[in-house]
Amino acid sequence: MVLKNSGPKGYPGMALIGVDWGTSSLRVARIDERGEAIEERSSARGILTVKPGEFPAVLNEACGDWMAQDRSLVLVSGMAGSRQGWVEAPYIPCPAGFGDIASQLAWVEPGRAGIVPGLSSHHDGVPDVLRGEETQVFGALALLQLGDATAVLPGTHSKWVRVEAGRIDSFVTFMTGEVYALLRHHSILGRTMEAPGSEVLDDEAFCAGITQAMKAGSLLKAAFSARTLSLFDLLPARSGASYLSGLVIGEELRSQQFALPSAEVVVIAGPELARRYELALRFAGMQPRCVGSQATWRGLSAIAQQLRDTA
Amino acid sequence: MVLKNSGPKGYPGMALIGVDWGTSSLRVARIDERGEAIEERSSARGILTVKPGEFPAVLNEACGDWMAQDRSLVLVSGMAGSRQGWVEAPYIPCPAGFGDIASQLAWVEPGRAGIVPGLSSHHDGVPDVLRGEETQVFGALALLQLGDATAVLPGTHSKWVRVEAGRIDSFVTFMTGEVYALLRHHSILGRTMEAPGSEVLDDEAFCAGITQAMKAGSLLKAAFSARTLSLFDLLPARSGASYLSGLVIGEELRSQQFALPSAEVVVIAGPELARRYELALRFAGMQPRCVGSQATWRGLSAIAQQLRDTA
Repeated sequence: MVLKNSGPKGYPGMALIGVDWGTSSLRVARIDERGEAIEERSSARGILTVKPGEFPAVLNEACGDWMAQDRSLVLVSGMAGSRQGWVEAPYIPCPAGFGDIASQLAWVEPGRAGIVPGLSSHHDGVPDVLRGEETQVFGALALLQLGDATAVLPGTHSKWVRVEAGRIDSFVTFMTGEVYALLRHHSILGRTMEAPGSEVLDDEAFCAGITQAMKAGSLLKAAFSARTLSLFDLLPARSGASYLSGLVIGEELRSQQFALPSAEVVVIAGPELARRYELALRFAGMQPRCVGSQATWRGLSAIAQQLRDTA
Repeated sequence: MVLKNSGPKGYPGMALIGVDWGTSSLRVARIDERGEAIEERSSARGILTVKPGEFPAVLNEACGDWMAQDRSLVLVSGMAGSRQGWVEAPYIPCPAGFGDIASQLAWVEPGRAGIVPGLSSHHDGVPDVLRGEETQVFGALALLQLGDATAVLPGTHSKWVRVEAGRIDSFVTFMTGEVYALLRHHSILGRTMEAPGSEVLDDEAFCAGITQAMKAGSLLKAAFSARTLSLFDLLPARSGASYLSGLVIGEELRSQQFALPSAEVVVIAGPELARRYELALRFAGMQPRCVGSQATWRGLSAIAQQLRDTA
């Protein structure tokens, strides 16, 4: 066990170490009482690189010094709680509130190191799942002091999350980032685009892609326009990737039914994706607010607080 | 020039050699006066394998003996007429009739070897193109003696073609086959499916995929269900690829606006894809008729007949 030097049990006064352990990366942070990161580290040791049984050692490498120093509580969110991860933290069905996830942590060491469970949502008998986003959503709500919101979490698998009265009511997954990468790098469409490299977004081509996605009614149909516009010299090679990005994000916007008309739209993403989604959502008439990676730390901090309050 | 031994010019009585020259394959046939293939050959010498200037030599390899034997007319359809092909045969804008393509062949050797032009169609200022399918569509119409039809040509890039009063009115391209292959072989979805191999279609899983595609309203959203159903043990690994095929073909069906209510739906495809599309179209309440690869030869034969009639 990695936490051998971390002192006696009990939440009050314990320092918090936040761990955001995803498929392809590992981020750790020392988190203060206001939920802000005092110090952050990240590595490429996502769960896909970790063999069963080696999770404690990898975490120790990442922040064993912090754990040895302080009498710490370690809270982990993300894919570390999946079947292929450290310890499986079973999905909690929606609707699920903040208290539900705080009370159903999967403890690696009881009271000292716990993994936040993901959520499941069903539509017409088909399940959907998320892991890690629940923590980001509750963190963003706390940061913005919102109880109702439509949270948009762009990425390889984008999530649209509907929050009502502080509870996650339901959500849906779009394979936006993964499909974009496949079309950009492995399909015929990439052939008429500039080679991948430092891709600066061409806002005009991006918005033209969004418009086309909305009109076409299916990405399967709209996608081919990236090729034909180029064949007819209507789309320069340098703008091709921006247009395709607009097509794919536009398709996500076209087909989501999650935006609550009366609720705030909150985008939770790093700067590059936040810029694209903010542009897209404004183009579609919405007024999004953006929150960055601090949402995870704020969410884990709120869970720690809940543990202290109910201890 | 490859046709040096093929005798004097003039269409009447000339034997017809049909060439279906696509991106990844080359098919040639000796075609009789009824438009049927007497003898067929195929090779992997699609245009992507042929260097500029080497098209005559590659064709000579494929059927030089036929060309030397007979006083032949050689008609070529497919990507050989593209900018990357033998000689560019510019796209003819829709609506376009059979006579339009017959009178605008790109002659490699005038009166002896010609390439059939492709068609272009515009929707909301966005161009779409096809090459080779025009010949298949006119061939299928001749075979079935139809003047109005919705022709469906499944493949890497599926085409839905609307034919009214014997003319191709417009068409639309879906990247169905390419997106299926990307999701099957390069995305996370493949991980919960049986390794690719001899894939026997699971009709039930295929139709479940179609149903889900219709409900979801976007493949970007529906696709993730192939993963979550598997995570929840609701989709066995051996049925995953069939379900995904249903999702993708179902998306094509959901979003096409080309089926003329009063017109016949004609599927032009080889046996494996024809079976899937027939199943999908029947599931969606249509009564398709199917035509196979002979459509190309019948189409080229009809063009040859038109040349004879107008000579």
